[in-house]
Amino acid sequence: MKAVVVTPRQANTLRIKDVDVPKVPKEHVLLEVQKVGICRTDRDIISGFYGESPKGSDYLVLGHESLSRVSEVGTGVHSLKKGDLVVPTVRRNCFENCLNCRAGESDMCLTGDYKEHGIKELHGFASEYALSDAKFIVKLPEALKQVGVLLEPLTVVEKGEVQTFKIQQSRMKWSPKKALVLGAGPVGLLATAILRLKCLEVSTVATRSKDSPKAQLVMQTGAAYVNSKETSLKSMEDKFDIVFEVTGNPSVALEAQNLIETNGVVCYLGIYRMEQGTEDAGGLFTNMVLGNRVHFGSVNANKFYFEKGVKDLTRIRRKWNGFLEKIITRRSKLEDLERAYSPESEEEIKTIIDVR
Amino acid sequence: MKAVVVTPRQANTLRIKDVDVPKVPKEHVLLEVQKVGICRTDRDIISGFYGESPKGSDYLVLGHESLSRVSEVGTGVHSLKKGDLVVPTVRRNCFENCLNCRAGESDMCLTGDYKEHGIKELHGFASEYALSDAKFIVKLPEALKQVGVLLEPLTVVEKGEVQTFKIQQSRMKWSPKKALVLGAGPVGLLATAILRLKCLEVSTVATRSKDSPKAQLVMQTGAAYVNSKETSLKSMEDKFDIVFEVTGNPSVALEAQNLIETNGVVCYLGIYRMEQGTEDAGGLFTNMVLGNRVHFGSVNANKFYFEKGVKDLTRIRRKWNGFLEKIITRRSKLEDLERAYSPESEEEIKTIIDVR
Repeated sequence: MKAVVVTPRQANTLRIKDVDVPKVPKEHVLLEVQKVGICRTDRDIISGFYGESPKGSDYLVLGHESLSRVSEVGTGVHSLKKGDLVVPTVRRNCFENCLNCRAGESDMCLTGDYKEHGIKELHGFASEYALSDAKFIVKLPEALKQVGVLLEPLTVVEKGEVQTFKIQQSRMKWSPKKALVLGAGPVGLLATAILRLKCLEVSTVATRSKDSPKAQLVMQTGAAYVNSKETSLKSMEDKFDIVFEVTGNPSVALEAQNLIETNGVVCYLGIYRMEQGTEDAGGLFTNMVLGNRVHFGSVNANKFYFEKGVKDLTRIRRKWNGFLEKIITRRSKLEDLERAYSPESEEEIKTIIDVR
Repeated sequence: MKAVVVTPRQANTLRIKDVDVPKVPKEHVLLEVQKVGICRTDRDIISGFYGESPKGSDYLVLGHESLSRVSEVGTGVHSLKKGDLVVPTVRRNCFENCLNCRAGESDMCLTGDYKEHGIKELHGFASEYALSDAKFIVKLPEALKQVGVLLEPLTVVEKGEVQTFKIQQSRMKWSPKKALVLGAGPVGLLATAILRLKCLEVSTVATRSKDSPKAQLVMQTGAAYVNSKETSLKSMEDKFDIVFEVTGNPSVALEAQNLIETNGVVCYLGIYRMEQGTEDAGGLFTNMVLGNRVHFGSVNANKFYFEKGVKDLTRIRRKWNGFLEKIITRRSKLEDLERAYSPESEEEIKTIIDVR
């Protein structure tokens, strides 16, 4: 079968490789992969920044955003059957099976020895067939067969949102009204939708014009779209109870400090370039202290957030017709590899590979 | 009576003023002030950085760290009597009586319209007599009459510690083992003691030598003392589940990022100078995201933390004989005003004014 592979830690080794269809261990499931989403993590692995092959292998199959049908189940698997529409989570428990991994929360693994499909020591899903441990697989209703590939990026938002509320409610009586989303890529758009589902007043900021597809999608949810080329963050007068920082741009993140309400919270979901020069870290910390503010980062998501995400995909689909479909701006084929993994236009949002 | 006053927002107007002993409203208590502690907030007010007079007054009585005896109670006060050893909290509810103020948590006031004794729109306690609303006063046992003036700085730590555990336990199963305290001033030393009371392995970092009084106090609690002039933060190999940043130095705060354990938490209690130049804000945010880390700031403390603080002062006093007494390195008189408010040596920890 065909698989999209790289040699980890070597730049530009992306290629199609012909590999054997794996045999199915007792507690595992063979997935007939339907769609794979492409994100910045994939591009960073292709650039050689990270990625780790499974032991005994000199390549890594890419792909952690996926949608599959069950092709075959191991003899110990009773919860799934051939044909089921499914998405596997990405991370697997650490070798030591730490406190959090044991509790089904490997996203909060304490040892760092976890594995991740398509990223760290486990092959990903960008291949015609792939394996996953059955207990890390969630089922999706048939209605989500066109957009279920967005579940994994949505889970990043789900975890950010759940932790935002848990943290804030642990600290005080809190009744947030306004949220700011910085960035309108796939995660920014999904964050906008999730915060709108909670009936918050949402403003989403990005660099594209108000006619752009991104701006249109923001406004479809009832959120306000702010073009940061027309309105600088510094000139905004609102204060926000919640900020989701998804641009991955530390200058934007620092500029937004003045927009956080007293007792407010910032959830960081990006990977940030190193920036030296004009940043005011002292101001950042003082703002945190004098306003009792929380800043937290979130990475990865466990099965709980995938299950919550399935429900929210259904709610978003019912509420904002076509919203999820329009996030997928390009569909590529396995064979069109180079093109698939390189952005082609500034209006692009999410590219997926139609595996079949 | 004598009172220590400034003209707010004007540098160097510190003086003794003769003012009338206030009359006692129905729900208030007249305090016969025993001791007043001096901290950086007082010095910042003296430098004209902030401070606000009560309405109708052109001066502000300083002092928010205090220990008093009840001198007279208003006709509506039944919970306190003449002679009681007491400490009033600092902040009073906002005019709108917001959700948190109403719940007794004015430290998390949502409107910013709160008042603070000795800081914002209410006279402080650095005078022979002072007034406080009775419901913001906590009683102390007689055994604390020498060290009870440390209660207010301790409450800053109490709130930081309680919120640290609430936030972390809201996010995951968490069983912290190691804590790092950056700074060994009064708040750093009290944080060291509070974290040691929780049986954590604590390392406390400061610039003084191992023979210094600060280092000796750290080691008295069983914590490790790290002289940052001998051991750079960058060379430390431990990772810490909890970091308390109390130096107020953004470079130290940023250097400590690499010492935070995965899923760890940093509690900021300092006021930071603005620093420009070599800071890596992008690295800070990435570290937050990839490690699911939380950074939060904390300011002020409500009555709950004062009551918890009274219990912990008693526990510290029983456990580490002389620890609290040695934090008070200088006792001054009201008349010695200029000297009282200016640090005299690098080994100084806490200066107090013996009002009587």
